[in-house]
Formats: sequence, structure tokens, C-alpha cells
Amino acid sequence: MNILITNDDGIRADGIIELAKEVSRIANVYVVAPDTQRSATGHAITIHSPIMVNEELINEDIKAYSISGTPADCVKLGIEGIFTDINIDLVLSGINNGPNLGTDVIYSGTASAAIEGLVQNKPAIAVSYNEFNIDKETYKEASKHVVEIIESMKNKLDLLNDCILNVNIPKGEVKGKKITVLGDRKYENVMEERFSPYGKRYFWIGGKIKSVEQEENNDIDCVEDGYISITPVNIDMTNRKKIKDLKDIL
Amino acid sequence: MNILITNDDGIRADGIIELAKEVSRIANVYVVAPDTQRSATGHAITIHSPIMVNEELINEDIKAYSISGTPADCVKLGIEGIFTDINIDLVLSGINNGPNLGTDVIYSGTASAAIEGLVQNKPAIAVSYNEFNIDKETYKEASKHVVEIIESMKNKLDLLNDCILNVNIPKGEVKGKKITVLGDRKYENVMEERFSPYGKRYFWIGGKIKSVEQEENNDIDCVEDGYISITPVNIDMTNRKKIKDLKDIL
Repeated sequence: MNILITNDDGIRADGIIELAKEVSRIANVYVVAPDTQRSATGHAITIHSPIMVNEELINEDIKAYSISGTPADCVKLGIEGIFTDINIDLVLSGINNGPNLGTDVIYSGTASAAIEGLVQNKPAIAVSYNEFNIDKETYKEASKHVVEIIESMKNKLDLLNDCILNVNIPKGEVKGKKITVLGDRKYENVMEERFSPYGKRYFWIGGKIKSVEQEENNDIDCVEDGYISITPVNIDMTNRKKIKDLKDIL
Repeated sequence: MNILITNDDGIRADGIIELAKEVSRIANVYVVAPDTQRSATGHAITIHSPIMVNEELINEDIKAYSISGTPADCVKLGIEGIFTDINIDLVLSGINNGPNLGTDVIYSGTASAAIEGLVQNKPAIAVSYNEFNIDKETYKEASKHVVEIIESMKNKLDLLNDCILNVNIPKGEVKGKKITVLGDRKYENVMEERFSPYGKRYFWIGGKIKSVEQEENNDIDCVEDGYISITPVNIDMTNRKKIKDLKDIL
């Protein structure tokens, strides 16, 4: 198997290094990652400027590059620019430093890299760890769960022809795996208004998670309960249920 | 009606200026737009740096601000930071310089601003014009179509509780309106490999649109045929159809 790995925390993040090393035990691993931290970039691509490419070293079994682009750029460039002579079987994004759950998935660089995989007609999996700034050893343990998921899916990859898997690994002991739906993530006090030393107004996006009613079997509660959450996330964004109603109005 | 208008081409783009002026005939208009061009930013938000705010002048009836953020930031900040005492009834994004059709919607800053409106529980419409660098007069004419759509929808805005409208206006004469699904947009020769004057390798994302088989009633063919395309675009990205299959495997 040939697996392209990327992330949104950048090439030097422990999450991608440990994942690449662990996955290289079962597959040929190709890495293209941003040269710096690119979290909350959504599905941005770089079209107004060039994308620089640098060779990087993770270990001798792994071909690795960093680029001056976004996570989605990494996948586009990995498949269509850098590794054009390799038939990539799977795109893997992560392991992200922190969760990508519920509504927040729309902001996620980690998930968007996987979605770009699907745009390129490749099965794709995004993986996030549900605590920030964990150590290498914890990422290594988490990567073993990712390898298990790959092993389970490898003969069923055609299922991922119209969705990616968004995987979130709980902190602490893992009780098992659940297939989930995206929950509803709301924040309160999101905007902190501040003033510069020169009196200029600015804002900083922050906010505290607000407790809201959740659909059963949602990803947020799943990881809270200690299970690995696996959500199939769509690429077709058309809301087909509303088409008839809109035809009546417009 | 109180309408928040944003875009991804920046506060000085003709598309937003003409739209704001035209819509201000039927509603109170509040503008928050990026201070520079932010196209292809997807649903990026700014969390690692402050977002600066500047007051701007479009005309005396319109309250306008530019910010050092993305289109999604504009909507977040407009609703939760700048216009907190206004009850916004509708978020409008555009008019974009160029189309946002089919698969490309995932890269679209214009669409992502509307989706952020929905995250904020506001009905939202994204509007794009299907030609690049058109003149003010053409944007003004296009804005009249947007006003018509708002007038038709204004008593039915609860329909937009789980989807945005992604509107694309064709170039030339408008034959009518159609409710569409997102088409499939593929490109060929996307990656141009180049070398800097100092021999360093880089890429630039380009590419030519590839002809692919399309679902009937898709947005791409719709605007090509001279009709305004209106697609309901989902906020819930869960692929519910795949949940059972995945439960059997994982």
C-alpha cells in the first residue's frame, strides 16, 4: 500500500512524525506537510502565490517534503506534483494536536486535507487526538489505533468513494470504537475585544464550549466517553431535501 | 430587514460595493469585509493572531468595516463582535469576482462566509458572477437579481435552517432561474512545476477545466445555459448512508 500522509500542524509536529513512522511498518509512506502550523485553515488552497518545496528527513524509509502551503495544497501537490509516479492508495491526515469534532470540522485543516484526497479520487482518513500538546509516546500509541483502522478498511476502501473518515481518538484509556454522526459544537463569548498599545481596536477569536443538546451517537459525546469516534463525512454538499421547496419559491 | 454583507475579494471590490448599495434600497445593510483579497481561503478562521478592525465608507446609509481576517472571520466578527446590538436577519456573501460552482465550492471563501452565517443560526446566501473582472454596471445589474431572490425568500427564510443558497449568475443575458445540484468540477494539468532564478523548485496551482460527465440539473451546465443557478448547500457534513456499512467493518 502507498499512503500519503499530511497534517495541518506542520512537518515538525510530533503527531505526523509518530504516525508516519508507525504506518511505515505496514505501508510505503510518502509525506507532504506544511512548513509551518496551519490549523483552522479550512479548505484553503494557495493560488495567488507560488508554493515552495523542501526535502525533509523523518527517517530513511520515508520520503518527506515540506511546502509553503495549506493542508489541501499538500494533498494536491503530493498527488499531482511531487509523487506523480506513485499510485497513492490512501490519504492520511494527522494526527492533529487537539480534537476536530462536530461543527468545528468545517474549520479543520486536518479534515480538509482528507477531503482534498477525495477530490483527487483517493480514499482518505483524518485523525485527531482529543487533548493538546501530548507527548511522542501518546502519539505513538494513538498511531497504533490508526494502523488498526487501516488494516480493517484496506479491503473495503471503495466504501470511501463519497466520504472521508473523520477519526477522533479520546485521551486516556481507549474503550473501543464507534461510528458516529457529527455533533453540534457551539461556543460562547467567542469575540474578545481588545485595544492595542496605540488605542487601535482589535478582536481575538476565543470562546468557551457551550453545552447544547446533541443527537444520539454524536462524535463529541463518543470521545468524552472514552471511545474512538469515526464519522463518515460527505463530499457532496448539496442539500437534496430542500430542492423541491426552493423550486416552489424561486 | 437587517442584512450583513461580506465577500472574499475584499472591501474595495466592486462586487460588494454595488451589492451593498443595491440591497440598501430594501434593507438596512451592515458590511464587514476582508481588508485584502482572500479568495480560495475555504472556511479558514484566524485564531493564531489578532484581527484588526477599520471603519470604511461605502455610502452614508451603510455601516462598513474592513478587518484583517478571512470571509468566515467577517461573519463571526460582524455578528458576535461589531454589530452585537443589531439582529441580523440574513447574511449575504458576494458578489464574487468569478464563479463558485460544483466541487470548487469547497475552496470558496464566498460560500464559506455564508456557511459561517448558518453556524451563527442566520439564513445565508452566497452570490458569484460567472465572469472575471466585470464592470460596476454589470455588478449593479446582477445585484438586482440578488434583490429579487431576497424578496422571494424573505417570508420563507426558515427554509434556510440547514442549508445556504449558493447562487451563480451567468454572464450575458439572464434567461431565468433554476434550482440545481452541485456539479463535478475536475481540472487537468493542475500543477505547474517551476524553478526560481536561484534554482529552487516551486509549484503554482493552475489547471484547465476538464470535461466530465455531469448529473442532470447541475449548477455548471445551468449557468453555461444562461440561467441563474441556485443550489442549497448543506451544513451537516455527516454521510448518514455509510454509517451501517462502517459499523459492519470497524
